[in-house]
Amino acid sequence: MTRPDWIAVDWGTSNLRVWAMTHDGAVLSERTSDRGMGTLSPDQFEQAFLDLAGDMLGDDPVQVVICGMAGARGGWCEAGYDRVPVAPGLGDATRVPTHDARVRVTILPGLSQLDPPDVMRGEETQIAGVLARYPDFAGVICLPGTHTKWASIAGGQVQRFQTFLTGELFALLSAQSILRLGLDDGWDNAAFAQAVAQGLADPARTSAALFSLRANGLLNDPGPGETRSRLSGLLIGLELAGARDFWTDAPVIVVGDDQAAGLYAPLTGLAGEVRFVGATDMTRAGLISAYSSIIGTGT
Amino acid sequence: MTRPDWIAVDWGTSNLRVWAMTHDGAVLSERTSDRGMGTLSPDQFEQAFLDLAGDMLGDDPVQVVICGMAGARGGWCEAGYDRVPVAPGLGDATRVPTHDARVRVTILPGLSQLDPPDVMRGEETQIAGVLARYPDFAGVICLPGTHTKWASIAGGQVQRFQTFLTGELFALLSAQSILRLGLDDGWDNAAFAQAVAQGLADPARTSAALFSLRANGLLNDPGPGETRSRLSGLLIGLELAGARDFWTDAPVIVVGDDQAAGLYAPLTGLAGEVRFVGATDMTRAGLISAYSSIIGTGT
Repeated sequence: MTRPDWIAVDWGTSNLRVWAMTHDGAVLSERTSDRGMGTLSPDQFEQAFLDLAGDMLGDDPVQVVICGMAGARGGWCEAGYDRVPVAPGLGDATRVPTHDARVRVTILPGLSQLDPPDVMRGEETQIAGVLARYPDFAGVICLPGTHTKWASIAGGQVQRFQTFLTGELFALLSAQSILRLGLDDGWDNAAFAQAVAQGLADPARTSAALFSLRANGLLNDPGPGETRSRLSGLLIGLELAGARDFWTDAPVIVVGDDQAAGLYAPLTGLAGEVRFVGATDMTRAGLISAYSSIIGTGT
Repeated sequence: MTRPDWIAVDWGTSNLRVWAMTHDGAVLSERTSDRGMGTLSPDQFEQAFLDLAGDMLGDDPVQVVICGMAGARGGWCEAGYDRVPVAPGLGDATRVPTHDARVRVTILPGLSQLDPPDVMRGEETQIAGVLARYPDFAGVICLPGTHTKWASIAGGQVQRFQTFLTGELFALLSAQSILRLGLDDGWDNAAFAQAVAQGLADPARTSAALFSLRANGLLNDPGPGETRSRLSGLLIGLELAGARDFWTDAPVIVVGDDQAAGLYAPLTGLAGEVRFVGATDMTRAGLISAYSSIIGTGT
């Protein structure tokens, strides 16, 4: 096995993903595990990393660059937040002491905003990846997820951002609310698009429109996937209404997998130019960019 | 023990409440149990009723009038929905066959609406109670709860109504979302009022404002009860924004306990005249009114 020059790590709440990397940003190998931040106490992180990637290490110390929830309070080691406006990247990164001398661990900072209060941890590295790929981009980056982020970009910096609880609301409502009783696993694209338009046009009615889904299931006979698609669409529509001042007349880059691309497809035709890029790709590009800063600055 | 002339029953999802009644509407005694509809299969309802109220029965058959979820699909016996516009009351009530000949059981119908699809079951009896108390009332009745109802009343009929998921959203978000991490048991009236105004003024931002509560907890130092009060206020504000065409320039009667009265206090000053009446009182008044129809019509 070729020893990596350094190791890139995306350590989220649910998953841990590592890439064995060369200096020039090539990927030698990739591994994932389900030992996310949510499953570990602070003293278990080093061993969890070594369990997954220990055999990649040789005798010389290797730089490990980590983004994500490993840097949250209650994670491996609390990494701060860089305050916007700021260029996301190495910033005020945190060197983490380790027992094993074969690794030099750096956790990247998140971003924070005072007014309105907001934070991100992990997505800033995807934004850095987008900016590494499109250095002159000015516009808006949308990062769908449990807590979807919208970020305004100008001059290579995040100017401001806003987090929406969309994904978590969908998860709670579909699994645990009264609406769960009417859901099947299907999907109905037309119903989804209709509900996005409805949520966007009349966000104030959201909590009534949600109950209407249940009533519709009792009184009528919704088709397969219709209720789930409308639930998803209403919440995306509510988000688009709330993020209107981000995407109006701005070019948008949506960072996400195919599913996210489907959910945010209605943006095309609403916003300026809309591009979709892969989330994993952007995370790795952001980590590569941070590593370049580390070896450049000798951090 | 004086034998009741009839028995009034409010059988909800979580609770069962019975009143031993006289012909003229006086209450001889009251009992409650936690054997709500949600805990029972259809064949267990009769016994659950007899366990709680069996000793009230004598040799002569007694009329039992029930409102609430006992009439839902999966309840004791499915009672239909009367379609609005309609005067809530006995309507298309359902006679339930029983093994025990000492009871004659009637379950009151719910209300339904085709467009937008909506249903209620239980609240229609509270509305009937309000109309028994204030026969000439024209305006809007607000019935706070897990699924809060707003109903337009004219000519003694429910003209239209709309259900909001407010209470369920609060329960899910406060107990199961990321927001739970920042909640204590306190209450902050000023923060609540501020958040109601915020939600009402900018409902589109709701899911962003929700995440801001979490970020505020990470970045700042919210006072005791502040985050919980703001969460509640944002959801009430969202509901008031969605129900604006109900309460604008209309007299409003809010049917609820003291807690509900506190949550809907901001309506005073927004709507026309606002009155608060007790929920239990109105349920019983509605059941009394239905009983009068039964003995009047010989159903």
